[in-house]
Amino acid sequence: MTKSPSSENFSKQLTSEHHPLPSIDTRERVRYSDTDRMGIAHNKNYLEWFEIGRTEYCRLKGISYREIEERGFFMVVAEALCRYKKPLHYDEEFIIRVSLREASPKKVVFGYELLKVADEQLIAAGHTVHITTNARAEVCSLPEDILNRLFGAKDEEI
Amino acid sequence: MTKSPSSENFSKQLTSEHHPLPSIDTRERVRYSDTDRMGIAHNKNYLEWFEIGRTEYCRLKGISYREIEERGFFMVVAEALCRYKKPLHYDEEFIIRVSLREASPKKVVFGYELLKVADEQLIAAGHTVHITTNARAEVCSLPEDILNRLFGAKDEEI
Amino acid sequence: MTKSPSSENFSKQLTSEHHPLPSIDTRERVRYSDTDRMGIAHNKNYLEWFEIGRTEYCRLKGISYREIEERGFFMVVAEALCRYKKPLHYDEEFIIRVSLREASPKKVVFGYELLKVADEQLIAAGHTVHITTNARAEVCSLPEDILNRLFGAKDEEI
Amino acid sequence: MTKSPSSENFSKQLTSEHHPLPSIDTRERVRYSDTDRMGIAHNKNYLEWFEIGRTEYCRLKGISYREIEERGFFMVVAEALCRYKKPLHYDEEFIIRVSLREASPKKVVFGYELLKVADEQLIAAGHTVHITTNARAEVCSLPEDILNRLFGAKDEEI
Repeated sequence: MTKSPSSENFSKQLTSEHHPLPSIDTRERVRYSDTDRMGIAHNKNYLEWFEIGRTEYCRLKGISYREIEERGFFMVVAEALCRYKKPLHYDEEFIIRVSLREASPKKVVFGYELLKVADEQLIAAGHTVHITTNARAEVCSLPEDILNRLFGAKDEEI
Repeated sequence: MTKSPSSENFSKQLTSEHHPLPSIDTRERVRYSDTDRMGIAHNKNYLEWFEIGRTEYCRLKGISYREIEERGFFMVVAEALCRYKKPLHYDEEFIIRVSLREASPKKVVFGYELLKVADEQLIAAGHTVHITTNARAEVCSLPEDILNRLFGAKDEEI
Repeated sequence: MTKSPSSENFSKQLTSEHHPLPSIDTRERVRYSDTDRMGIAHNKNYLEWFEIGRTEYCRLKGISYREIEERGFFMVVAEALCRYKKPLHYDEEFIIRVSLREASPKKVVFGYELLKVADEQLIAAGHTVHITTNARAEVCSLPEDILNRLFGAKDEEI
Repeated sequence: MTKSPSSENFSKQLTSEHHPLPSIDTRERVRYSDTDRMGIAHNKNYLEWFEIGRTEYCRLKGISYREIEERGFFMVVAEALCRYKKPLHYDEEFIIRVSLREASPKKVVFGYELLKVADEQLIAAGHTVHITTNARAEVCSLPEDILNRLFGAKDEEI
């Protein structure tokens, strides 16, 4: 498979610049059904919260993840890591802070931090690695216009 | 929409006979992630357990629900009711007892009982109502061969 | 068990007045993890959404459900019913509309309607029945001050 | 905090021996509610499956995780990693293979592999790191008898 020149450029641009990409914050609250018998949010919910965070990341960048899928592209989760630092209790509000750690037309890495709203305490941190596929589940590149919106330097609108 | 004669017959047969259809038992265990901070299984899990029960009901009747969907038919949930009698705790084993309460080519009602394995205590009871649709989400009749397998009198094999 | 006079009064007051209690709206969005392979929100999520709605109902009435539990009282779910009218798709926004259908010191019934934000279409409707218990899981009455806040006529603040 | 001599011994014993500890297999099936609109099991379920696997690991070692908690000890998840290799579809059966990667009185690492039952294909691999705490959420050592059962060399019974 040959990369289109534009994808090539895009990839370089991202890895060479290194200026910190802004993170996006989303606020959530621990639901009763998120808790377990220890009285704290169960570990599997964090992956759901990461997903909510990156969904809002895409939306604020100007393209909803739903649109990406409607155009036939999928950002399949290839790896997920979460480090749990402090527990979250029922009804506590927290921030999902998402940043882009790595981006190329075929692979994207998001980083996450969960922070308590009350005192900005770090609750958890992690990342997810995504591979871009088409509707036939074949690895492919995201089209340039989506790449530009998701990962472009034009972040003024946020 | 005209019913096929066979569907008509099928429908009559089911409503006239009234001999009790056998129930199907599936065994499950309360997972840690099923519990909430009250220390008991959260109420939403019961709908998931009902689903597991009717999936096994279909399989034991000779056609998996996956096959039904692969042939382009869906048994969409139109109503779900659960009455919670006793709590279920972490790691407790229980039985999901499923029976067919009502069946016609376009509508199916399943009844459920959850029983503790340890003492056969009734934990919960409920039902789900299903409407048959095709892949375009239009109400339709299940084909006769599926109906016969799911709801037919040939239950000796169980 | 003898009811305290105040609880008695409270109960009468609620059943005699019959003026419609205001409903409380909460907005949510269908998460990716809420969808199933039919492409729509899975039926079990609706019970979670009902719960979110009644949690916000309590909070807006002046006492969070967390506080109620911290004071040693639990509103245990004894019955849940949901009628599914229209599907909800990924990323769609919807309103959880909660109203109090019935209230006595030992039993509460909440009613729910889910509406699409885009066109106010009715997605689902249902109810949950709750029994009040103490920390030893014994049926008991909610204390008067909680009752007054949750179900009192003082709804001007909303 | 001083380690008891027995814990010290236990720790050494485990790190010096290095003979491979046997893995424990548990069989599960993808539930309808586990799938998402891509038609495959959602990534957050894998953490639930890891948990089921290690629960069965403990049970087969002669002490259920419920018993450990009833004695006042908790194996809190401090880190979870999952690498997703192949998708799992609705109704597919898979094996959760759990092994002990590292064990000391205060920290345990479990390793996981998910394999398709049909063809033993590797679906996912990962690990979880656990810290032992008491009921007051303070880091502590597991008592020797629990350690011996969970991680002891006496695995003949499996």
